[in-house]
Amino acid sequence: MPSLDLRADPAELTAALVDIASVSGEEAELADAVEAALRAQAPHLEVVRNGDAVLARTTLGRTSRVVLAGHLDTVPVNDNLPLTRTGTGDDEVLHGLGTVDMKGGDAVFLHLAATLPEPRHDVTFVFYDCEEVEAVRNGLGRIERELPGWLHGDLAVVGEPSNAVIEAGCQGTMRVELATSGARAHTARAWMGVNAIHALAEPLRRLTAYEPRVVDIDGLTYREGLQAVRIGGGVSGNVVPDAAVLAVNHRFAPDRTPEQAEQHLREVFDGYELTVVDCSPGALPGLSAPAAAELVTAAGGRAAAKLGWTDVSRFAALGMPAVNFGPGDPTLAHTRQEHVAAAEIRRVSEALRTFLSP
Amino acid sequence: MPSLDLRADPAELTAALVDIASVSGEEAELADAVEAALRAQAPHLEVVRNGDAVLARTTLGRTSRVVLAGHLDTVPVNDNLPLTRTGTGDDEVLHGLGTVDMKGGDAVFLHLAATLPEPRHDVTFVFYDCEEVEAVRNGLGRIERELPGWLHGDLAVVGEPSNAVIEAGCQGTMRVELATSGARAHTARAWMGVNAIHALAEPLRRLTAYEPRVVDIDGLTYREGLQAVRIGGGVSGNVVPDAAVLAVNHRFAPDRTPEQAEQHLREVFDGYELTVVDCSPGALPGLSAPAAAELVTAAGGRAAAKLGWTDVSRFAALGMPAVNFGPGDPTLAHTRQEHVAAAEIRRVSEALRTFLSP
Repeated sequence: MPSLDLRADPAELTAALVDIASVSGEEAELADAVEAALRAQAPHLEVVRNGDAVLARTTLGRTSRVVLAGHLDTVPVNDNLPLTRTGTGDDEVLHGLGTVDMKGGDAVFLHLAATLPEPRHDVTFVFYDCEEVEAVRNGLGRIERELPGWLHGDLAVVGEPSNAVIEAGCQGTMRVELATSGARAHTARAWMGVNAIHALAEPLRRLTAYEPRVVDIDGLTYREGLQAVRIGGGVSGNVVPDAAVLAVNHRFAPDRTPEQAEQHLREVFDGYELTVVDCSPGALPGLSAPAAAELVTAAGGRAAAKLGWTDVSRFAALGMPAVNFGPGDPTLAHTRQEHVAAAEIRRVSEALRTFLSP
Repeated sequence: MPSLDLRADPAELTAALVDIASVSGEEAELADAVEAALRAQAPHLEVVRNGDAVLARTTLGRTSRVVLAGHLDTVPVNDNLPLTRTGTGDDEVLHGLGTVDMKGGDAVFLHLAATLPEPRHDVTFVFYDCEEVEAVRNGLGRIERELPGWLHGDLAVVGEPSNAVIEAGCQGTMRVELATSGARAHTARAWMGVNAIHALAEPLRRLTAYEPRVVDIDGLTYREGLQAVRIGGGVSGNVVPDAAVLAVNHRFAPDRTPEQAEQHLREVFDGYELTVVDCSPGALPGLSAPAAAELVTAAGGRAAAKLGWTDVSRFAALGMPAVNFGPGDPTLAHTRQEHVAAAEIRRVSEALRTFLSP
């Protein structure tokens, strides 16, 4: 089993984590190494293992608790392991799978776990599996079912890449299907039928004409979106089709509930048959909570809106303010070119140290 | 083996043919019965068997030859066998699979084969297999390869249902695919991508605004068509798709060559990437040929444009004028409700008898 030095520079620790491959479902070796390192190098923590997740916490009796959560898994290898490096010193850049999503964040949390034995808030560390695959396999969901007490706190920080800026709240996402119907006929006698694909012309026109809202909440800017994600229809090459479907993904700012978002889509596509296929609510930024405000200050006073949907929403659903805060550019996540500046990893580590120090 | 009485009323002969099921690929029993009946009841004909096709011809040394062709197969059974009857006498209607497509036409040709030993033109009868399935299995294509001399003549009459009206020529058909491209992005950051499905809005608008030509040729009216027959695109529920495709079927009047039809589609969809997937040329009506003109007269002087594509085009490609002429409403073909008036079968038989009698 590879050993991890949690007291090392968090950029070096990131490199060590990256070189233990951990594609979703295959996190056991990394979870073993994390568990062993925490038990050996952070004896002040209570540590439990749950599947391929590792949890650890202080029990100092503080009046508030902060949860630091990071997933251990990555998307599949794409010719981007082992880790490579360019530059030196403050200009060093780490390249490879997981440098961005999200072993930099994991390294920061592990480093703090070993080096901050008496933080100002009690701290719970959650290193979990299967975030990059279907939601039903998500390790955080399993922990919520099996060890619910371990996720409680006054603030959650998810270490997903956020360019080292606090990203607060998250947008909701809703998928709807718009179905058109017609009447089959032979294409040689098309006037005897009604073409359901032609009937998608108007909904597509509305989509292309749609102006998404830009919404300000607590000083953060959310950009909504409305995008076709699938289209399908057709019977055979000589038949006027009698059915077609357009699937649309709506990303909506957290000032709207799922019910309001659905109502909005029913107005946009008025006159068409609409079915909600799935929906995840957004999460309001919650930056007015005391611990959240302290964290923003420690991170330099800036915060931005989270646009994508992340596990932040799971914590928000538990009633906690929750933010993303981690090194790395999220637009590089899931690309072969993942890379992160070593200095950015250190900057996040220092901000969290400032926030958590007594 | 069921026996067929070719000298019987052609409506009764239709009923006998319908009750010998002959779904494409399973025509052997019907072909056996047809072959045996021709050999026994039309000894003046030269008869050959080719697969499950049966061919027969007079060799009277006439100066012209007419080919009468009908397929023996049907689409799959759809709770519409055995045959049922409603009405009586001149109002009798035959219901069941093949009554329209096209055992009425077959019955007329078989009846004439046995009862017109000395026709005014030499006559070739072609009863063939697998017309209702993919073109590569079509029995007429096999005969063209293996017994090419049997298809020559001065006029071809295909007995497909045409409401007992001469349908001349046929429209061409062309399928094209229009592809759009874009750039993938996460739907939470849709402005970083380009949606290829949204890019189909404009081609669909042009389709719905398209006014098909109505073309007159030799006094016949052809109605063209332009119909989407398939649409597809999408990567996953949270990705702005980078590719989509729209398949379009164009039916074009026989005054246009395939090259002209393609040029027309390139103009309609100017600015888009277009690929021709398949094409079958149309066939001009050719009603000015002497034998064709005689047939129109014998059929009551009326002729109409053939809109669908039929094996008439195969004969046209061999340089012969070719028409559809058969009992039954073509819009009932391939429906569970196939039915034909017995009187219409007799009317077609009498018209062809008039045309072929010395």
